[in-house]
Amino acid sequence: MNSVTIILAFAFLAILTAVIYALKVTRIQIGTEGGKDNESKKLIEISSAISEGAMAFLVREYKTISLFIAFMAVLIFFLLDNPETPDFNDGLFTAIAFVAGALISCLSGFIGMKIATAGNVRTAQAAKTSMTKAFRVAFDSGAVMGFGLVGLAVLGMIGLFLLYTHLFQNVGTLYLMEALAGFGLGGSAVALFGRVGGGIYTKAADVGADLVGKVEKGIPEDDPRNPATIADNVGDNVGDVAGMGADLFGSCAEATCAALVIGATATALSGNTDALLYPLLISAFGIPASLLTSFIASVKEGGNVERVLKIQLWVSTLIVGAVMYFVTDKYMVDSFEIAGKTIGKWNVYISLIVGLFSGMFIGLITEYYTSHSYKPVREVVDASKTGAATNIIYGLALGYQSSVVPVILLVITIVTANILAGMYGIAIAALGMISTIAIGLTIDAYGPVSDNAGGIAEMAELGKEVRNRTDTLDAAGNTTAAIGKGFAIGSAALTSLALFAAFITRTKTTGLDILNAEVFGGLLFGAMLPFVFTAMTMKSVGKAAVDMVEEVRKQFREIPGIMEGKAKPDYKRCVDISTTAALREMILPGLLVLLTPILVGYLFGIKSLAGVLAGALVAGVVLAISSANSGGGWDNAKKYIEKAAGGKGSDQHKAAVVGDTVGDPLKDTSGPSINILIKLMAITSLVFAEFFVQHGGLLLRLFQ
Amino acid sequence: MNSVTIILAFAFLAILTAVIYALKVTRIQIGTEGGKDNESKKLIEISSAISEGAMAFLVREYKTISLFIAFMAVLIFFLLDNPETPDFNDGLFTAIAFVAGALISCLSGFIGMKIATAGNVRTAQAAKTSMTKAFRVAFDSGAVMGFGLVGLAVLGMIGLFLLYTHLFQNVGTLYLMEALAGFGLGGSAVALFGRVGGGIYTKAADVGADLVGKVEKGIPEDDPRNPATIADNVGDNVGDVAGMGADLFGSCAEATCAALVIGATATALSGNTDALLYPLLISAFGIPASLLTSFIASVKEGGNVERVLKIQLWVSTLIVGAVMYFVTDKYMVDSFEIAGKTIGKWNVYISLIVGLFSGMFIGLITEYYTSHSYKPVREVVDASKTGAATNIIYGLALGYQSSVVPVILLVITIVTANILAGMYGIAIAALGMISTIAIGLTIDAYGPVSDNAGGIAEMAELGKEVRNRTDTLDAAGNTTAAIGKGFAIGSAALTSLALFAAFITRTKTTGLDILNAEVFGGLLFGAMLPFVFTAMTMKSVGKAAVDMVEEVRKQFREIPGIMEGKAKPDYKRCVDISTTAALREMILPGLLVLLTPILVGYLFGIKSLAGVLAGALVAGVVLAISSANSGGGWDNAKKYIEKAAGGKGSDQHKAAVVGDTVGDPLKDTSGPSINILIKLMAITSLVFAEFFVQHGGLLLRLFQ
Repeated sequence: MNSVTIILAFAFLAILTAVIYALKVTRIQIGTEGGKDNESKKLIEISSAISEGAMAFLVREYKTISLFIAFMAVLIFFLLDNPETPDFNDGLFTAIAFVAGALISCLSGFIGMKIATAGNVRTAQAAKTSMTKAFRVAFDSGAVMGFGLVGLAVLGMIGLFLLYTHLFQNVGTLYLMEALAGFGLGGSAVALFGRVGGGIYTKAADVGADLVGKVEKGIPEDDPRNPATIADNVGDNVGDVAGMGADLFGSCAEATCAALVIGATATALSGNTDALLYPLLISAFGIPASLLTSFIASVKEGGNVERVLKIQLWVSTLIVGAVMYFVTDKYMVDSFEIAGKTIGKWNVYISLIVGLFSGMFIGLITEYYTSHSYKPVREVVDASKTGAATNIIYGLALGYQSSVVPVILLVITIVTANILAGMYGIAIAALGMISTIAIGLTIDAYGPVSDNAGGIAEMAELGKEVRNRTDTLDAAGNTTAAIGKGFAIGSAALTSLALFAAFITRTKTTGLDILNAEVFGGLLFGAMLPFVFTAMTMKSVGKAAVDMVEEVRKQFREIPGIMEGKAKPDYKRCVDISTTAALREMILPGLLVLLTPILVGYLFGIKSLAGVLAGALVAGVVLAISSANSGGGWDNAKKYIEKAAGGKGSDQHKAAVVGDTVGDPLKDTSGPSINILIKLMAITSLVFAEFFVQHGGLLLRLFQ
Repeated sequence: MNSVTIILAFAFLAILTAVIYALKVTRIQIGTEGGKDNESKKLIEISSAISEGAMAFLVREYKTISLFIAFMAVLIFFLLDNPETPDFNDGLFTAIAFVAGALISCLSGFIGMKIATAGNVRTAQAAKTSMTKAFRVAFDSGAVMGFGLVGLAVLGMIGLFLLYTHLFQNVGTLYLMEALAGFGLGGSAVALFGRVGGGIYTKAADVGADLVGKVEKGIPEDDPRNPATIADNVGDNVGDVAGMGADLFGSCAEATCAALVIGATATALSGNTDALLYPLLISAFGIPASLLTSFIASVKEGGNVERVLKIQLWVSTLIVGAVMYFVTDKYMVDSFEIAGKTIGKWNVYISLIVGLFSGMFIGLITEYYTSHSYKPVREVVDASKTGAATNIIYGLALGYQSSVVPVILLVITIVTANILAGMYGIAIAALGMISTIAIGLTIDAYGPVSDNAGGIAEMAELGKEVRNRTDTLDAAGNTTAAIGKGFAIGSAALTSLALFAAFITRTKTTGLDILNAEVFGGLLFGAMLPFVFTAMTMKSVGKAAVDMVEEVRKQFREIPGIMEGKAKPDYKRCVDISTTAALREMILPGLLVLLTPILVGYLFGIKSLAGVLAGALVAGVVLAISSANSGGGWDNAKKYIEKAAGGKGSDQHKAAVVGDTVGDPLKDTSGPSINILIKLMAITSLVFAEFFVQHGGLLLRLFQ
């Protein structure tokens, strides 16, 4: 079979899998068939509120996004015109790919949210009877997102590939691949809003709910008396399902585009469709590997959920690693040449393997730094004894320190892949790292579903045993979420570097010497961007949270009987506030990310832009890892204190709550948004490469 | 007059000025001539305790440093041997310059501490009668440090220059200048320990004193009942006088060395001593400019101290700017060539001016972000209303955001200087930025003297009016300290870049393309270093502070009558604890900074090392600015709340105290230490350049 057939077949397999899992989940009845008991009615009521809130947000977010997508599409259409391709309207076809990427990413997000908000209540219900069932429902819900997204992404890319190569048989493959890169930009642009907007939403709700509920009123998490509790649960979906999905969709699409563009510069690849499509084969073969693995996902009552999830990651990783050996042998050409370097097929394979495993190790080291089973978090726990200040100091230090090993792993990956297969190797390593994305995303989406299930169980007062089961599921999800974040950052780093390399290859830029003042100036400027971006997103969460706090306080004040559980709070108002704030606050950071590369390239030229990309990349990776792990560490330090140290209400716990609250926006908004910052700036540069070649460096020309 | 005569004359002028100011300060009697009243006895007793504590620390620190200096000197002696200079023992003469730099830096620190601890009590006494007198005593004490340090630095460099050029008339100037660079390394190595050790000392004492005194016991700052109060006052001297002094000594020596090395590659300069010594002329002419300015430093009772200090900076800046016009015209050659680029004398002058003024602007923007008169700190004040967590979030965001303008100013400086005068221009811009260092250091050292004076006034119970006067002096010192920190970071960035350039020039490295995997891997690794370094130093402060907290708590528990003022706490124990902790904790970060460049260069070669230097530089600058300004912002937010918002003891104030405590190590230990990190790694690379040329890249050679 040729590559195209296989890729198409596996894409459809993924979509079919998603459909089957979706049916499996949604067919579960809530309550008995005959009539609904009171408990079930309550379950339906609560989950509908969450589902409606999530959809309301998504609809409003997509409206904003569509305006933006239209604007960008027009920009692409008018700015891009390559004189080397008179027969091919670069602007138009890049814009089409861009819109396709954006739409498919939105669609994936929508499906993920739909099923997550259907799965949460069913998980809660299943938890009434057994852990095994509850786990399976949550896992299946996650799988819809995991497989659906990968299937759609792969289908979108192979579809466009077939369309463009069929329509323009006389246009060079490289130009077509460049137009295809618009798909990555589209996916990434949606991810920007998903991560930033979603991140702000979820943390505004979370911080708002905690600050008034837990701290001021002393009521537990997910207490139905807290007006922000529905918004908080909506937020888990918005941030961790739609946001994370869009982020990884972006990584997958962008890394593929980077590999295709770089690969197309090699004649041995551009003339051989099977080999050229090798990057898509990686994602495609990840699908059956993930599917096989998902069959063994099963938890016994009282079993170790975390272990089951980690085994999922390991098994799928090993299968992909093994299968790709044969795939490489069959579909990759024996050797090809890029930028004067001869690259053998096994060099490509080893690059893939290095990326694949370095992803796993980054995940595991992330777990070491954020799990309360190990020393770093225990130190934060101890530091909390002397107050909030020392808790913060140790938590920040934990994050900063946690960057060492991932950075070294990334350096090893980059250097190895580059020595073996040049910049193509780095793109392949990035794809290797996310080749098991179907199972990875399944587990990622499993987390918020379980979390929500716990919230619903609490609100519907399903009893302690049920809550214990969902808590166990949720706790495992938290650990794997940390691993997932490690993956996301690592893959973002490699993807950006690959895109960056594609950009440089494309613009044929030389003389990017770090001591060149344009390049160095760019490096310094670029290194500052992740910090400013973090500042913006942190403050956005702060502002949105203040709005939320005020609303919650107002409701407690003005609606009599809330605290006694006699009156119902106005959940919808809180959902509205989070939605409005998130959409308002995502504009400024969004503009920063999108306009910076375009303006720098236009005004200061390609060398400065290259410097900016590299500076933002290196500083951004470190800051993103630090932010995510500081946040994760604070979170788990607090949980440990609740369970095994001072306990809730102790001074130690109060200190830990401060850290947890600071960490929330860092780990769920700012940190993950940096992934998008570095990827999006790189792919924007790649897509607008031709524009910069023709018109870039306006100011430099003026001074010369 | 030739350059040499002028430089020598001004160096002696500076030393003479320092001596005169020193006599002026120390001749002030404490108490009346005839016999000591009770108050004076108390003053003497307290100030002796501070002075003894400071000296005890310095002696122990210098012992540790001398071991280290001996080790490094041996390393330099054995590792350096340039086959191109058979008649010249590179290792030996670099080691001699190294030891000279280290000794002179230690001597400057010692003098600064000696006079600061003599000036503090005299300032307190003068504050009994008048603001004008008190200001003058504090300013004069600072001036001893300012002028003494610059005089000794310039004298040391010109002395070595004369010695080496006289002894080795047949050895090329470039090789001699390289040996001279050892002087910069020596100064910088002392600065490492001064900044890191001093920073840990001062903050352990401060945090320890505050956590138990202010937070737990509710007694005011500098209350004599607090056992850590003497240690706290010692810390101000150790960190802000000796540490800051060593830092700027390092910048001055390193930037001069970088300029000399780069300049010596131009035949037109290496053959013309007047022009070659232009870099030293900048520092030399800064001396009379600063001296003239210092004459107009005067404050009326109730006058605006901050304004007086800022005028000092502006006037000295303008004088240097104007004078250097004539100096450039007279001593610089009309044009010379470096690395194929022809550079005219006015290009050099403009580079100097750009550096000079961008330093001022960086200082002013730093003030904007850290003074409570402006929006950023006010936002932190507001955020404190909702608790410690939002205080932290807004404070972190403030720091991150505050890096934008300084980074842009640095980029403009770098690009302009580079366009005009290549890498020589960047070294000159760095020297321009610190050309007014004599007055800058005067003001920097004035701060802790006033701060101490306040502490002494409080402990000796001199009355409210006296304390008000010292508080006014201190407050102005805090603002100018923020400006000083901006200068220190900016100059560190330019200095490192100049050193980096000298290193590359020296090793004749080409092909430092950012997409080269060795370079990019280095960049990423380098960007991680400032974070790890920050984590280490923050935790060191945390650990040392915990030691201190336990000691203070123990004393409150075990010495009956402390709280009632009936029994005296054991101040000495606390001083000891800070000293021991600081010396213990500075080892690890110290090793990281010194061994990293040597190991990276040896194992992975010059390209990787260049990447590491550039990565550490760009990420370090941003992190250093952020850390300093977050800390400054938190500090002033707390002060504003005390004065004009919630007031002491309010919830808002409690939240602000958390931020202030987190900010303390960030702004006074970790942030400033990053200056040293980036400079020291760069000069280590430069000094060991020849070693890397001969033996670097061991691992790379193994794999090839």
